[in-house]
Amino acid sequence: MYKAPVEEIAFTLKHVAGLSKAIEDGKLGDLSDDLVDAILTEAGRFASDEVAPLAEIGDKQGARMVDGKVIVPDGWDNLYRAWAEGGWNSLTASQDFGGQGLPHMLNVAALEMWNSGSMGFALGPTLTMGAVDAVTAHGSEELKAKYLPKMVSGEWTGTMNLTEPHAGSDLGVMKSRAERRDDGTYRIFGQKIFITWGEHEITENIIHLVLARLPDAPAGTRGISLFLVPKYLVNDDGSLGARNDLHCHSLEHKLGIHGSPTCTMIYGDGKYGDEPGAIGWLIGEENKGLACMFTMMNNARLAVGMQGVAICEAATQKAVQYAKDRTQGKAPGWTGSGMSPIIEHPDVARMLVTMKALTQGSRAICYVCAHATDMSHHAEGDEARHWAERAALLTPIAKSFATDAGVDVASLGIQTHGGMGFIEETGAARYWRDSRIAPIYEGTNGIQAADLVTRKLPLSNGNHVRGYITELKQVVNAVRASNLEAFGETAARLDASLSDLEDTTEWLLSQLAAGNASAALSGATPYQRLFGLTLTGVYLAKGALADEDHGRDNRLALCRFATENLIAETAALKDRVIHGEASLNAARALFA
Amino acid sequence: MYKAPVEEIAFTLKHVAGLSKAIEDGKLGDLSDDLVDAILTEAGRFASDEVAPLAEIGDKQGARMVDGKVIVPDGWDNLYRAWAEGGWNSLTASQDFGGQGLPHMLNVAALEMWNSGSMGFALGPTLTMGAVDAVTAHGSEELKAKYLPKMVSGEWTGTMNLTEPHAGSDLGVMKSRAERRDDGTYRIFGQKIFITWGEHEITENIIHLVLARLPDAPAGTRGISLFLVPKYLVNDDGSLGARNDLHCHSLEHKLGIHGSPTCTMIYGDGKYGDEPGAIGWLIGEENKGLACMFTMMNNARLAVGMQGVAICEAATQKAVQYAKDRTQGKAPGWTGSGMSPIIEHPDVARMLVTMKALTQGSRAICYVCAHATDMSHHAEGDEARHWAERAALLTPIAKSFATDAGVDVASLGIQTHGGMGFIEETGAARYWRDSRIAPIYEGTNGIQAADLVTRKLPLSNGNHVRGYITELKQVVNAVRASNLEAFGETAARLDASLSDLEDTTEWLLSQLAAGNASAALSGATPYQRLFGLTLTGVYLAKGALADEDHGRDNRLALCRFATENLIAETAALKDRVIHGEASLNAARALFA
Repeated sequence: MYKAPVEEIAFTLKHVAGLSKAIEDGKLGDLSDDLVDAILTEAGRFASDEVAPLAEIGDKQGARMVDGKVIVPDGWDNLYRAWAEGGWNSLTASQDFGGQGLPHMLNVAALEMWNSGSMGFALGPTLTMGAVDAVTAHGSEELKAKYLPKMVSGEWTGTMNLTEPHAGSDLGVMKSRAERRDDGTYRIFGQKIFITWGEHEITENIIHLVLARLPDAPAGTRGISLFLVPKYLVNDDGSLGARNDLHCHSLEHKLGIHGSPTCTMIYGDGKYGDEPGAIGWLIGEENKGLACMFTMMNNARLAVGMQGVAICEAATQKAVQYAKDRTQGKAPGWTGSGMSPIIEHPDVARMLVTMKALTQGSRAICYVCAHATDMSHHAEGDEARHWAERAALLTPIAKSFATDAGVDVASLGIQTHGGMGFIEETGAARYWRDSRIAPIYEGTNGIQAADLVTRKLPLSNGNHVRGYITELKQVVNAVRASNLEAFGETAARLDASLSDLEDTTEWLLSQLAAGNASAALSGATPYQRLFGLTLTGVYLAKGALADEDHGRDNRLALCRFATENLIAETAALKDRVIHGEASLNAARALFA
Repeated sequence: MYKAPVEEIAFTLKHVAGLSKAIEDGKLGDLSDDLVDAILTEAGRFASDEVAPLAEIGDKQGARMVDGKVIVPDGWDNLYRAWAEGGWNSLTASQDFGGQGLPHMLNVAALEMWNSGSMGFALGPTLTMGAVDAVTAHGSEELKAKYLPKMVSGEWTGTMNLTEPHAGSDLGVMKSRAERRDDGTYRIFGQKIFITWGEHEITENIIHLVLARLPDAPAGTRGISLFLVPKYLVNDDGSLGARNDLHCHSLEHKLGIHGSPTCTMIYGDGKYGDEPGAIGWLIGEENKGLACMFTMMNNARLAVGMQGVAICEAATQKAVQYAKDRTQGKAPGWTGSGMSPIIEHPDVARMLVTMKALTQGSRAICYVCAHATDMSHHAEGDEARHWAERAALLTPIAKSFATDAGVDVASLGIQTHGGMGFIEETGAARYWRDSRIAPIYEGTNGIQAADLVTRKLPLSNGNHVRGYITELKQVVNAVRASNLEAFGETAARLDASLSDLEDTTEWLLSQLAAGNASAALSGATPYQRLFGLTLTGVYLAKGALADEDHGRDNRLALCRFATENLIAETAALKDRVIHGEASLNAARALFA
């Protein structure tokens, strides 16, 4: 059973991502290392003792429709309420509305633990937090006062309604429509699909954020507006009024995250109310809905990245335990009686160390990304812009690298279990099934790569990413200066990967400058992975350097394994980035 | 819906794997290219029109126990009977017992098609074929006469009973026991798990091959005997007698291949018959049971490899179709009206071409392996030994590379579908779930790697693999001599990968010679992948060279993509092979 790795999480936050330094520098108010430890410890307890035990029943029962109602798995309603009462929904929310105003980093660490416990469960609150962010940033004072306190406390959950059958990655073609009413409200009509936690009976109200198009809106993405559409209308005194004209039509039958209801939502078909049309309130300005969504996109994408980290951690724990317990054959050098634990076999050990390295690398990248977001909120002017650019650059890498790692690590977890890995009761297969959605939603990893290459590399004319690479090189210098033999060839390997990163970055920038988008996009996915692998090596080294106490040798050994075994792949990836387009275009004829 | 790629299969058999040359050289009797085409065409029709349409219901309903009986999905009983009546069970079986005595290559190609249609369905007959092979090679004349005709025709199915809860990869510790009886029969007692198609009502009898230990047997793998244990005893006139004392206790709840019943079998607990003990007949000699299993292990492992190829093909077809139909966004250079088909986006195209290259590479490796088996059967002396060694060398590569490719390609298939890929009704997820067992059963891919390195490389003192690499180099010479510009950098890339293969091979042989098994085993999995990737490049090149008609440009383009994009990974793999052990051993402390 999953046990939250609180110490490792705290170490990574403090010494790799920069939390301790930010606290020392007075950037985070009266937050202290001790308070951080206390929060993480309690989150770890709740995730391990309360959430994780309900993951299997969540998978087996799944969310289901009974007599038109969406029913969550047994125990999840009480679990959710205990979780919200623990204050976990409000860590980063504004203190003006009952939130705790804590750094984003802490919430990201907590999200990791909820998702390790049960990804299907953790997904609901993640959406609520996104809705809170959007209303906080763009809602009118009236909307905020009316909705935020109960959304922040978790008494009401929130959803994001973007996708339609023909509008997934490309939201510009969405058809849901909104009509203005004289009282300043709107009426919303349309069908939305893939709406996470779109309907349930756990809370008394659900606040839907819905993208729709006004009759006179410009075509494409510049004609989309964002609306707040509650399941039950809210009276001025805060009590609940009539049922709004919206409902869940059906649930999807999914590969994983079975406990999370994925709803097809119908707005304004006249099922409820006097006249058809779900009553909504504008968030932000008309036709600026997509900009409102972009505000919270970094957070949402990083939250999905945390699902990757979470699956990595949980799947690795499970596999290590099995490999210690299961005996089979005799490993080379085994002198014990009977069969060896399979962890003694070099091939099994290789799988487990690889899992550990990808887990820790993904975690570090995601936390570093969260740190950048925090710093951007606690700085001004050029410094704020610097950190905002850092968060923007890292977000697609964090989302894609961690979610790909989640799938790969969960797969190695199955493999470690042998035949038992294919049996559902073992639980290893559930991690793999759950993990598979994360490279897809909140922008597929291919879209992350396109975003990274075409929008993020050009930030500050390419100088932001260049400056970042220079910073990364300083870690390698420190590795070299440490003279620690246990680093093995780490410095030389990191040099090589950083050089691959630098070469491909400059090549991509030159292609973009020459207007050759096709060449840049052809290499985007391999580049994104190259970046993530290199960061894995660098941040494992940073952690090893920072660890002056117990565990130093373990961190050094993990870093050495990663740099000597995993990151050499950057050379091949560089090749794909720079030389991929011509052969790719030639091969397109295959599908003509 | 899957459509069997009959032309591609025939081309690969004939011109890449060597079937046409073997026919020309008179090695395969009166088999002709035309007969090959006729068989493949009819197999393709059956797989596409009869098997594939029943795959989804097989997955949804699954095999289940109803009132103690194992029930297969709706329609599968008639499907099986039509399949057997079509003669598909008996392609390679001996003509002495009603088989068709055709080359193994043809059966392997047919297996690909059945598995593309439905992996859960195809698995049952695969086990029967394995049982036929074992009885044919090692059974007494009496056993053969009594059982083979109905097993060859498919009137009865067969199973293989190896695994026990504590004996999976390591069969030496199995506990099932056999007692001698004065009449020359044995009584079998014990529990076997993971028994594929161990029980069902489709055929009137099921012939179980069961490994068990005699009371006076030596410990370990040298004390295991193989028994034939029918579900119903067979009278001398061929009619069925009493029910034997064995039954299916329960079915596993699996990640995939739901339609295939995976049984826990109980032998000899007294449920049936006068006295406890399932009546069995010895196959081969006492205590030589594992040697009997080894006889057919190459075939069984290659059959699993074909499941990988099969999933690759089916998943690729599905993804290509979706990517042509689904429109979203505007790809660079798109001049059509509205959104582009997503296949126009470079990242989607990259996924699809990668899928295609891995499919074709895996197929070629597996067919080449089957060809080696056929040639070993149709030759004598040194030539037979040469081909047997070739088949032995290629089997672990074929099994592991193709099954890993199956998982990877099915995953890319899901990714191509975006959010729809996560919805079960789409069908992309089923391929991925089904695919995941193939790297595990018939020896995990880690065990394949250990076999490749420690048993196959040393064949003929390393000279077999050296000779093979020399042959592979001749393909590169032909690429260079062709002067075909469309090959791009293929020759140089293949040179580099073959050099990596050569270096790692020699390094591993030297480690083995020095008695350093741990070093060799630490690099076994990366070496196995290095070998498979290199073979992919070489055999795609061989196909491109051989294709003088239509499609030449497509084969050249696919080859170029593979060599310029995929096989550069061999450099990093070489690194892992040669430098992996030290860092791996240092990192083991992580789990202490």
